[in-house]
Amino acid sequence: MALFVQKFGGTSVGSLERIRAVAERVARRRRAGDDVIVVVSAMAGETDRLLGLGRSVAARPTERELDVLVSTGEQVTAALLAIQLGALGVQARSMLGHQAHIETDGAHTRARIRGIDGDALLAPVREGRVVVVAGFQGTSRSGDITTLGRGGSDTSAVAIAAATGAQVCEIYTDVDGIYTADPNVCPRARKVARISYEEMLELASLGAEVLQIRSVELAMKYSVRIHVRSSFEESEGTMVASEDESLESVVVAGVTSDKNAAKVTIRALPDRPGVVASVFEPLAEAGISVDMIIQNVSDAGRTDLTFTVCEDELLRAREAVDALLSSIGAEEVVVDSRVVKVSIVGLGMRSHAGVAARMFRLLADEGVNIQAISTSEIKTSCLVADKYRELAVRTLHDGFHLGD
Amino acid sequence: MALFVQKFGGTSVGSLERIRAVAERVARRRRAGDDVIVVVSAMAGETDRLLGLGRSVAARPTERELDVLVSTGEQVTAALLAIQLGALGVQARSMLGHQAHIETDGAHTRARIRGIDGDALLAPVREGRVVVVAGFQGTSRSGDITTLGRGGSDTSAVAIAAATGAQVCEIYTDVDGIYTADPNVCPRARKVARISYEEMLELASLGAEVLQIRSVELAMKYSVRIHVRSSFEESEGTMVASEDESLESVVVAGVTSDKNAAKVTIRALPDRPGVVASVFEPLAEAGISVDMIIQNVSDAGRTDLTFTVCEDELLRAREAVDALLSSIGAEEVVVDSRVVKVSIVGLGMRSHAGVAARMFRLLADEGVNIQAISTSEIKTSCLVADKYRELAVRTLHDGFHLGD
Repeated sequence: MALFVQKFGGTSVGSLERIRAVAERVARRRRAGDDVIVVVSAMAGETDRLLGLGRSVAARPTERELDVLVSTGEQVTAALLAIQLGALGVQARSMLGHQAHIETDGAHTRARIRGIDGDALLAPVREGRVVVVAGFQGTSRSGDITTLGRGGSDTSAVAIAAATGAQVCEIYTDVDGIYTADPNVCPRARKVARISYEEMLELASLGAEVLQIRSVELAMKYSVRIHVRSSFEESEGTMVASEDESLESVVVAGVTSDKNAAKVTIRALPDRPGVVASVFEPLAEAGISVDMIIQNVSDAGRTDLTFTVCEDELLRAREAVDALLSSIGAEEVVVDSRVVKVSIVGLGMRSHAGVAARMFRLLADEGVNIQAISTSEIKTSCLVADKYRELAVRTLHDGFHLGD
Repeated sequence: MALFVQKFGGTSVGSLERIRAVAERVARRRRAGDDVIVVVSAMAGETDRLLGLGRSVAARPTERELDVLVSTGEQVTAALLAIQLGALGVQARSMLGHQAHIETDGAHTRARIRGIDGDALLAPVREGRVVVVAGFQGTSRSGDITTLGRGGSDTSAVAIAAATGAQVCEIYTDVDGIYTADPNVCPRARKVARISYEEMLELASLGAEVLQIRSVELAMKYSVRIHVRSSFEESEGTMVASEDESLESVVVAGVTSDKNAAKVTIRALPDRPGVVASVFEPLAEAGISVDMIIQNVSDAGRTDLTFTVCEDELLRAREAVDALLSSIGAEEVVVDSRVVKVSIVGLGMRSHAGVAARMFRLLADEGVNIQAISTSEIKTSCLVADKYRELAVRTLHDGFHLGD
């Protein structure tokens, strides 16, 4: 007998039929003798519907009230699931953010959890009840309703698992685990049984959008084991856990690609101190996140500076750079959104030399030109023309024997 | 400068356009220098939609969870109105039942208010904000969400007005006040400027369904003045206040009719002690409310017993009586749902003799046969065939000079 936290996302509770299937799954676990705390998202589409209502009332709705509005989505699911569990003969009780004392800071629409009262959650559990927590929401010190931002229910679930000492935090979603690559791009992609927090963080931020990145950080901090699995089938998914627990010792854990990248190149920039700073300061002020940055060696006192931004921020980035072109004395700006960032991720890269070199060789052998490179401790990324996306991912996947 | 509580019902906030109109009305009052606490219902149809969701999940949903579910309706309206007020430049803040400390007993789906923290509501008011309270909901001592039952937002508003010492509780609805009779039945019906709590209680329970009866009881207990008025126009409505405040001293304040009545007659009942009790005990056990009861004088040891019930409880009432017919030795049961109860209500009836007699005479002069009579201190009701409804109402209305 153990305590499980089970989190079900919007698709998993997207209809009354799906909520019934979730209740039956929870009931099976309960009848097997385990204690269960369930964390639910709003029914698929509901958060967008509520946001739409708020935005049709005011162009810039008060964030405090937006949280009051959208938090009803999870409240409805929690009540419906508790009702459905009751109908199946399972004692259940819904709990909202303020009832579970999920205390957050006051940053409405993007709050961060400060603390959770594990005892408030465990009291009904000890009475034999399944607790159904409305995810995504909390309460600020002043008693206001807050929400954790998109995908925040994952974070709710991990934080609740940490506060209650649950054995594992199961995240039920519409995929059955973490793959070595996107199966739509790479048919030979393989589901991995275990992956480390660090690898998951790099994969999540690179577009394998299964888990909210903050929930993985939190899980790593509090050593909460996350089991990512499908709500539509029974098979085991992927366990995200600490490196020590990892049975597999692989150099490269996965290959990802990010289409949402765009390249900005400033040509013939004077190569003198302060020029680079004067490029990136206005971008930072405009709230534009810059990803890769590449500066070539100087040629006759001038250099080319290339960086990448999210595709949907390209227009604003270009405007910001255009505005300072003459003042920094650069020649021209060239932008290109037809690029894709392909990355390999793996803890083994820390100890194995030559992994990056092998990546470049595999791409070169297929005639894929590399436009930019960036590296971190457990990740190497290459920017390539987007027409090469599938070829590059498959080449790297097979070249590093990920399908074996 | 004074404090007003303004309550807007489901029709008044039934669409985003209507919510905007409500916000503009609140803003005008605020700009005139008054403080405002707004109480809102769910958007029209929303409570039924949510109840439908809950009932499609389980035949008998847990009442605790039903309250969690349906209370989201008022939460959504409160947030949307606060957002709309903000867009109009009015500082506003929504408050839910637990934030306003609207403490109730634990009777889910029909809770009663035990206390309200007036200071919690007044603190933002003193900061110059309009407070928008989600009506219909409260919180039990154990921190569970409760709801007050149908029409509970009226009760929320009156209780809040009492707790904050508001000058008046304005109930905005889709009619513009209380009329001397239903204008659809009686074209000469006239809106009354003032009416006493007692008269309003009798009118409300008789089918003039403008105010929830509990809210009027509460207003009477705490001397809260209720201004019933239209949310669609600016004209003054009807002030419901204590008798002392009533400027008009009339014998009859209004005429109402209740179509939802059905008559049950037990023929040739043995006239001996205990028989009448043995008829009504099974009805009470079945939860059937009996309204009028008439027993004729005995004839040869046998009597006819007539009573009325709500039309939708007629079938159950007949079954209950049929079951005991032979045991009590009565002859037969006759039921008739084609009846209507016509009533006159007025404080003046306490001191004016002959009001009832005048009512019977007015009806008789028009050839309307009276099937049953019941009286209370400020009300006299006659049961007549339903084809006489309009005729009876108009005759009494004009006969008591209510249109003048």
